[in-house]
Parts: sequence; structure tokens; C-alpha cells
Amino acid sequence: MNQVNKENLNMPIRHMNKTIQRISPVKAVWLNKAQERLDKLTKPLGSLGQLEELAKQLVAITEKEKPVLHHKIIFTFIADHGVAEEGISAYPQIVTAQMAANFLNKGAAVNVLADHAGARLVAADLGVAVDLPPHPKLISKKIAYGTKNMMRETAMTRTEAIESIETGIEIFQQEFKKGIDIAGIGEMGIGNTTASSAITAVITKQAVEAITGRGTGINDKILERKIRIIKESLTRHLIDPTDPVDILSKVGGFEIGGMTGVMLAAASKKIPIMLDGFISGASALLAVLFEPNVRDYLIASHRSQEKGHAVILDHLGLRPLLDLNLRLGEGTGSALAMNLADASVKILTHMATFESAGVSEKTT
Amino acid sequence: MNQVNKENLNMPIRHMNKTIQRISPVKAVWLNKAQERLDKLTKPLGSLGQLEELAKQLVAITEKEKPVLHHKIIFTFIADHGVAEEGISAYPQIVTAQMAANFLNKGAAVNVLADHAGARLVAADLGVAVDLPPHPKLISKKIAYGTKNMMRETAMTRTEAIESIETGIEIFQQEFKKGIDIAGIGEMGIGNTTASSAITAVITKQAVEAITGRGTGINDKILERKIRIIKESLTRHLIDPTDPVDILSKVGGFEIGGMTGVMLAAASKKIPIMLDGFISGASALLAVLFEPNVRDYLIASHRSQEKGHAVILDHLGLRPLLDLNLRLGEGTGSALAMNLADASVKILTHMATFESAGVSEKTT
Repeated sequence: MNQVNKENLNMPIRHMNKTIQRISPVKAVWLNKAQERLDKLTKPLGSLGQLEELAKQLVAITEKEKPVLHHKIIFTFIADHGVAEEGISAYPQIVTAQMAANFLNKGAAVNVLADHAGARLVAADLGVAVDLPPHPKLISKKIAYGTKNMMRETAMTRTEAIESIETGIEIFQQEFKKGIDIAGIGEMGIGNTTASSAITAVITKQAVEAITGRGTGINDKILERKIRIIKESLTRHLIDPTDPVDILSKVGGFEIGGMTGVMLAAASKKIPIMLDGFISGASALLAVLFEPNVRDYLIASHRSQEKGHAVILDHLGLRPLLDLNLRLGEGTGSALAMNLADASVKILTHMATFESAGVSEKTT
Repeated sequence: MNQVNKENLNMPIRHMNKTIQRISPVKAVWLNKAQERLDKLTKPLGSLGQLEELAKQLVAITEKEKPVLHHKIIFTFIADHGVAEEGISAYPQIVTAQMAANFLNKGAAVNVLADHAGARLVAADLGVAVDLPPHPKLISKKIAYGTKNMMRETAMTRTEAIESIETGIEIFQQEFKKGIDIAGIGEMGIGNTTASSAITAVITKQAVEAITGRGTGINDKILERKIRIIKESLTRHLIDPTDPVDILSKVGGFEIGGMTGVMLAAASKKIPIMLDGFISGASALLAVLFEPNVRDYLIASHRSQEKGHAVILDHLGLRPLLDLNLRLGEGTGSALAMNLADASVKILTHMATFESAGVSEKTT
């Protein structure tokens, strides 16, 4: 195996801690301001349902009565998983690298949907198992050539776990300099629903069977094996369910840590975070374990067909915007729901009020 | 009361029947073509869930491998309901006319969301209780100054019922000449959830309590009265549940008939129909009663908070795209879901295939 460039390895851990310390809850005063505005608009009170809730959340996060969502970024983090060698995926590991190339050539679903949403895709290699050909659009931040097989050893060291989170923070900060108004979060990595199920089992304390699904489309026999491997991995490692670094290092993935880092960085900068599906949900569980106030900044784009995702959303208290039986990842759900965020802001800012339009208010 | 211009009254009924005769089911060959294409794209099979189903439906309706959704129209039909005098709404009847003005001044939610969707709003007066000031953007096709109070007499004559449907057909055909690729359907009319509940009760045979909700936001006491009035209206009129004209004339509304007309016309021209909420759902029940094959052309934009809507969607076998607790009408749900229709077409037409991208296919 080639040597990975370890230039980031000595980055101080305080970088992560500093970011976490900057995260504060959203303020009720902004929620109230948004509610007042919504209730003046020419529509029955509350009749735009979840779109109104979303508008309020965006006002509260951005601390602006008229939020602007001009710069939309989808962060798609790519990495491989050692546990793939156990044969728990419907696709061979090389697909991770092939799909990375597909992202760069704009052929993947997330390219099409990010484009459709007016979002810019930021694709980063955090740990693909092979060297990717250099590409001007590829952010190369490989921490290792894939994680180790969690069934036999810890997926990564504690240092690597922290490095993956700090890499996510760093990538966010680089893009933040260019402008970010809303951050979508996605991933690609053969084997990463297995890691995500393990993380979800530890944090939500649900049975592995209840949170393990078919990923990219495995059959019954492989699903059974996948469940057994997750259970054995959780038994092998004595995991501290209150320590996100311990969880990430023992059963996580580099892209999962990276997404957690983006969430911590975005929350610290008061930027709304549009989650994707199950795997970004596992990252969110870790982010909220680091700092519960991250929760205020999370928007659930959709509920995935992957069964563990509903458990994650319940655990986080998030109601998804879409429920379209998606199970693709990459940031496709994040991209799709960006349009609803735009719509909610336009409702808040473009509609007439009862007063300005001369419309009578409710009589009863 | 002023005299209504009855120039359309002698329009031949055959116009409606001819339209209905032109409606044919979509062809399986087009669904198969779309499925073949979807299965070649670089994503796990079926992983874009309902977005893939929507893409297939759009291909089958338009009979084009690459459907084009350039011309999006939202038809918002406006009319009053005599039953409003029973005090079954949270807003006074004058709000119908005030909101018509708001649509024309671009201040309503549907204006903002149609704009957001890149759709053109076509607002038409099919029976507002007062004269609306002339406006270049208003289509004036008033059939009467509101329906009669269905609690005391039939809401309209059979001739008026047919006229409302033919008016919808005519408005659609006028716009079709300018270009329509997808037709959204919406409405405004104080009292129209009461009429829609009555229609839904007759066609779905569900209990009135199970399909009557709070409309624009009535309290428990008014809800109780609303249910009683619907029950008494259904008892008073001996309605033939197999005759859509009988149902529409006894407990319907002019905007409801108009929307049914648009659906019949759109299906006859192989144009996809994006339904809105509960009231457009009642119109769809009538349209499908006229001709079951209309069903193939219907897309459910969302499931409304109005409880009868879920019953309608089940009856029609439609799975909604959105479930955001909307209960506004006007075409707001139709407009919001247009973006998903666009997204589904782009997936079909812009993504790379496994072959073109050099990505390995499923191994198991």
C-alpha cells in the first residue's frame, strides 16, 4: 500500500474543541420574529405547515429576518471501509473510486440534483482505498487507504478519528471563505451503511436488526451476514457510548467523521445544515453527542428507505421534509430539499400581508 | 344581484363527452422504456425511489423518452359557495374576492410558489359572489354569483354543472395553444372544503366525520356544525354516486367542476396533471368517475393536513410526493412539487450510465 501524506496528523486537537465551544443554541427571539411575520401573511394561520417551521428555523439560525440562501454547497465525502472485505455490500469496493471519478465528471445523481438546486458540489477524498487520479475539482485529504475491518480491529486510531473530523472542519472553513449560506452533507463509500448501523446501534441503543437495512440493495442472506458482522464488531470492541471519538474510531469511517466535522463547523458559524440520508444521519448522531446544540442547525432533507434512518431522525427529534423512498446517498436528498428551503424563505419575504393586500382576517 | 353573462350556457354537452372519449390509458411500452433507461444509470437499482416512479409516469404520459417540462401552468379557479352562509368557515365570504385580487397582484402564496417553480399562474373567476374588477390577467368565466346553499337546495343546476366542467376544458384549451407541458391545479373559495367533503363522502362512501376537517382553521364547535350540515345536505339530496354531474350539481362548486374539466382536457391531450390538496382531490374523484383512465395522468403533489385528503389519495391509489402538513390550497402544493417533476426528468436525461462512466455493476 502507498504511504498516505500525514501532513495534517499533528494538527492540534484544540481546533476541534474550539469549534465545538463556538456552538450556541438558536435564540427564541428570532423564532418569535419569524412567527410574527408568518402570521401577517395572506394565508390561514399555519397553513403552510412544515414550510413555515423551516422558514422559522432558517431565520433563527441565520439571525436574519430575511435569510439569504444564495451560496449552496453540497459536501460529498468519499472513503472506503475495511469491513467491505466481509462481503456486506451489493457492489465491489472499487465502485467507491469509480463513483469519485463519476462525481468529478458530473455524471452522478448528486451532480444532476446539485445543479438542479443551484448548489455547488465539493467532493473530497477522505480515505478511498486506491489513489485517485488528480483532478482540479477533487479535494484530496486522504487519511488512510480505507478504514481497517472493524470486525477484526478498530476501524481507525483515535488520532485518525479526530483527524477525519478536523479535516471536515478544515474543508468547511476553506469553502466558507468563498461563501456558504446553507451546507448540504453527503457521502460515498462502499460498506458505509454497515459502519453507520454500528454507530446508530451504539448511540440510540436500538437492536442491530432494527437499524440495519439493505444498503445499496443486498439480498436476505447478505443482510443476515451484515447484521451478524455488526453485532460481532460491537461485541469485540468495548465502546464508550458517550464518547464520539471512541465510537468513530472503533466502528466509523473517514467520510463519517468528515461529515461530523462539517456539521460542527457549520453550526459554529450559524450556517444551516441540510442532512442527507442514513449515513449523514450517523454523522449527525456523533455531532450532537459532541454538542447537543448542533441539533438546532440540522434540517432533515428526507427519510431514507434504509430502515435505521427513521430511528436516527426520531432520536434527533427531526421531521423530514421529503419521504420519497430514496436510498442513494451522495447528498442527493440534501440537494432535492434545498428547493424547499428556498421556497420557505420566499414565502417569508415575498408574500403580501393581510394589511397590504386588504384581505379580511379570521373571524372565529 | 347582477346578471351573469350566459354566453356559454348553450355550449354543446358533446364538447365534454368528446374530450372524455379522447382519454386513453398510458402504454406499458413507455413505462418499460423508462425503466430500462433508469436501470442503466450510475446508482443502485431503484435507489431514487418515488423520483424514479415519477420519471416513468412522465415518460408514459408524454410518450417521450426525454420529457420536456418547459411550460408549467398552475390553474387557480375561484368561486363562492352558498353554504358559506351557514357559518362553516373561519373566514368571511368576501375573502374569496379579496384573495382573487391578491392573486392578480401577485401577493398570495401561490404567486410566490408558482414563480419559484417557473410556472405561470392562470387565475379564473368561475363563480365569485361579487363582481371582480376587470384585470388583464383575470379570466372571467363566471357561471353564477356563487353556488346556492346545498343545505337548502341543489348547489347548481345540471346545466351549470356541465358548464363549469366545459369552462375548465375551454380554459385549458386556450392555454394549451400557448403551450403546456404540465398542468398544476388549484383553487380558492370560502366554503369549498365543505363541498369537497360532501363529494368525497358520496364517492368514497366513507363516514362524513372521517373526511371532514378544519379547512382554514375552524374550532371544534364549527367543525361539529360543518359535519352536521354536510350530513343533512347528503340526506336532503338523493345523489346518484355513479353520476359525477349529479354529485357536482347537488353538493359541488363551480371551481370544483372547472378543475375536473381541466383534468379531463389535460388527460385527453396527454399532459401530466399535478394535483394540489383536498379540493382538487375532490375534483379528481369526479374526473376519474367520468373516465377511470384519467388516473394515469394524475400526480399527487402532497398529502394535505385536511384529513379527507388521505382518503381521496387512497381511493385514487396515489402516493403523494410531499407531506408537509400544508392546508392552503390555491395550487401551492402543485407548485412546490413541480420542482420534483423537473428533478425526476433531469435524473432520467442528465445522469451517466454504468457503461459511459465505467462504473462496475451490482455483483450480487
